[in-house]
Amino acid sequence: MMHINLFIFGCGHHRAAWRHPGSAVESLGDIAYYEQLAQIAERGKLDAIFFADGHSTDNLTDGPRWFLEPLTMLSAISRATRHIGLISTVSSTFYTPFHAARMVASLDHISNGRMGWNVVTSMFDTEARNHGFDTMPGHDWRYARAEEFVDVALSLWDSWQDGAPQMDRQGAYVKPESIHSIDHKGEHFRIDGPLTVPRPPQGHPVLFQAGASEQGRDLAARRAEAIYAVAYDLAAAQEYYRDIKRRVKAAGRHDFVPIMPGLVTYVGSTQAEARARQRELDELLPAQDALRQLGMYVGCDCTGWELDAPVPSLPALEAFKGPKGRYATVLRIINTEKPTVRQLLGRLAAGGGHCTMVGTPEQIADEMERWFLNEGADGFNLMPPTLPGGIDDFVEQVVPVLQKRGLFRKDYQTETLRGHLGLARPCARN
Amino acid sequence: MMHINLFIFGCGHHRAAWRHPGSAVESLGDIAYYEQLAQIAERGKLDAIFFADGHSTDNLTDGPRWFLEPLTMLSAISRATRHIGLISTVSSTFYTPFHAARMVASLDHISNGRMGWNVVTSMFDTEARNHGFDTMPGHDWRYARAEEFVDVALSLWDSWQDGAPQMDRQGAYVKPESIHSIDHKGEHFRIDGPLTVPRPPQGHPVLFQAGASEQGRDLAARRAEAIYAVAYDLAAAQEYYRDIKRRVKAAGRHDFVPIMPGLVTYVGSTQAEARARQRELDELLPAQDALRQLGMYVGCDCTGWELDAPVPSLPALEAFKGPKGRYATVLRIINTEKPTVRQLLGRLAAGGGHCTMVGTPEQIADEMERWFLNEGADGFNLMPPTLPGGIDDFVEQVVPVLQKRGLFRKDYQTETLRGHLGLARPCARN
Repeated sequence: MMHINLFIFGCGHHRAAWRHPGSAVESLGDIAYYEQLAQIAERGKLDAIFFADGHSTDNLTDGPRWFLEPLTMLSAISRATRHIGLISTVSSTFYTPFHAARMVASLDHISNGRMGWNVVTSMFDTEARNHGFDTMPGHDWRYARAEEFVDVALSLWDSWQDGAPQMDRQGAYVKPESIHSIDHKGEHFRIDGPLTVPRPPQGHPVLFQAGASEQGRDLAARRAEAIYAVAYDLAAAQEYYRDIKRRVKAAGRHDFVPIMPGLVTYVGSTQAEARARQRELDELLPAQDALRQLGMYVGCDCTGWELDAPVPSLPALEAFKGPKGRYATVLRIINTEKPTVRQLLGRLAAGGGHCTMVGTPEQIADEMERWFLNEGADGFNLMPPTLPGGIDDFVEQVVPVLQKRGLFRKDYQTETLRGHLGLARPCARN
Repeated sequence: MMHINLFIFGCGHHRAAWRHPGSAVESLGDIAYYEQLAQIAERGKLDAIFFADGHSTDNLTDGPRWFLEPLTMLSAISRATRHIGLISTVSSTFYTPFHAARMVASLDHISNGRMGWNVVTSMFDTEARNHGFDTMPGHDWRYARAEEFVDVALSLWDSWQDGAPQMDRQGAYVKPESIHSIDHKGEHFRIDGPLTVPRPPQGHPVLFQAGASEQGRDLAARRAEAIYAVAYDLAAAQEYYRDIKRRVKAAGRHDFVPIMPGLVTYVGSTQAEARARQRELDELLPAQDALRQLGMYVGCDCTGWELDAPVPSLPALEAFKGPKGRYATVLRIINTEKPTVRQLLGRLAAGGGHCTMVGTPEQIADEMERWFLNEGADGFNLMPPTLPGGIDDFVEQVVPVLQKRGLFRKDYQTETLRGHLGLARPCARN
């Protein structure tokens, strides 16, 4: 079975989604909005909802970025849902393991075993400068810290044996031998333990990671229980999928580690209708701003480009002097999709390097099935261009097709996120 | 009008409460239990519920201490209630201001303006050793950090103007001039800002403090908007009350700063019934453990003391070599209440130095009124010896008497914690 996850972001993953007259931009501070999104996803029997997180505000003229904080949101959402998993991003660079382990454990109890945490090392100097740094610490330092962070968190969760609170009214609340300190003294952290929270219902809340760099892939292979990926097309997805599965095996792990690339979908009753939806959003982008931003990506002045003409030719990747990653994405979109300038701006504004599928429910299900059956994906991290519309469309129209084909569950069979993902409950590690 | 706050702690504030056959000890990991307590308090029109917090596990054989983490709990509880304020302890020693300000602001949005934060500097080496310290940093360092912590948090909340998200679909989501960085570089923190969360509904979530030491009282006088206190009797309450009100004025503040001493109540339809309830709990204490612990407080071996005899005479305070605070409490209880050994153990097991009132609803209301009218208290921080029983008794029996006397609201008149406490909404500070 496929695993499907809803990535909740503002009014949707298209940068202009909030500009639509019907957008929920006025509700971004209202927890009921997020509860409703989670309920739609749960109606579709999705595995989980997921929140990214950032620690700085940037480009707020362009659109909403962050509003509520994800861990606090997920507690409320857990009470408005019953089955669906709840995943929060946690920065190992800005948090400390005790805080993170304690909050995530608490949320796993509150949600009866539905929590996941997506460990990121964060990226931006503006974020670092909200946490005492002058600039973002280097990649090596961040990844070394991330791995130690994860290990300490797991140890803290295991510092209480399952069932440690024996609650013997005539005797002890906890038998002393059923909890233990962890006495960790590492490169980055010094923590005695035990945690203040008993072992979470899932043992360990499910650890997600999105390793892209060499170190990221290795950390994911060694530690992650599920992986988010960026894959522009099936070929890229397969390259990543096979590489990670190989690394997982090389790390001596024999467990199933689902890989879930991001997926932007525009659903319509015909392909033309789906394309019209995409175009409607693309046209909401303030073109001059988007052209200025594109200019920074491709290293030339684009402000005079004609919106409905084909994209002018650009130098090859090797000849480009600036950051290659984003430039490669631009070239790939141009070469594969032959877009107009406006279409290119729209593609970059919704998911960027992530896969985009535009079509009827059957067409989208076909494509998802192709990825699923051909070592491209064990599931998908849905990034609807608009919310709630985009997830409602997916749940109402695409999910039934996947269910009919036996590719997706018709109802929840388990009560925990770990259960939905087919992952075993880990024993305590000591 | 009085302000009344429910301090939620485990199965109640009596250390043996969990041992009662009817206790909710099996529910301490179940968020529904805390939601129910908040709902009872809201039925009684109380100002707020409050959670203490600690970062280590100690004496877990003796009884439950911490379980769920308070910030994550309060989000869920906010969705199970509509009016009551929600106060979480936040350690300024272990948190950093960006995390704390962000979470508390998020919760203020989620709860529509009902959040308060009780700043503590924490106390125990065992806690410090979960956060990278070898021992607890000194008192001066902790208080200097706390004051800087509070100031940075307030600045972060003010880094968005009210209504900054203008949400102009044809223009900007936020006008650049309506948010600003804070560029804080202080002794303890370096934070650029702005926050990622728009200004909280209350402007600033309400700042509580419980200053006892000189530095604590000064910090409370300069910064706190409401104050928790420890007062054994009316005389002690008045000393504290007058001292703090004087310091508030000396700090140049003319606003109302409610002072709320802790209060343990045993309610019965007769005084004898109330006393019987107290005795029933006291008898659940494992006597030998309690005597051993008492021995540490008073510096002699108490394990041979007869439980139902009067307390043997003890040396005067001046002659005592160990920690004076707790010893003074013991002497005061002995001198004022002439308790048996078992009664002394019970008093120390429930609130310790806090005021205890035992009697009929009218007797308790009389006493509360006396404190309220005589510069002892602007309200109370209720510490029911058992939960949910103790708060249910209070709400069903004592609240109606206070309401009848015009001492307590019959219904909520406002929608925010700030409103319930009679505090103005602060303007942004820059």
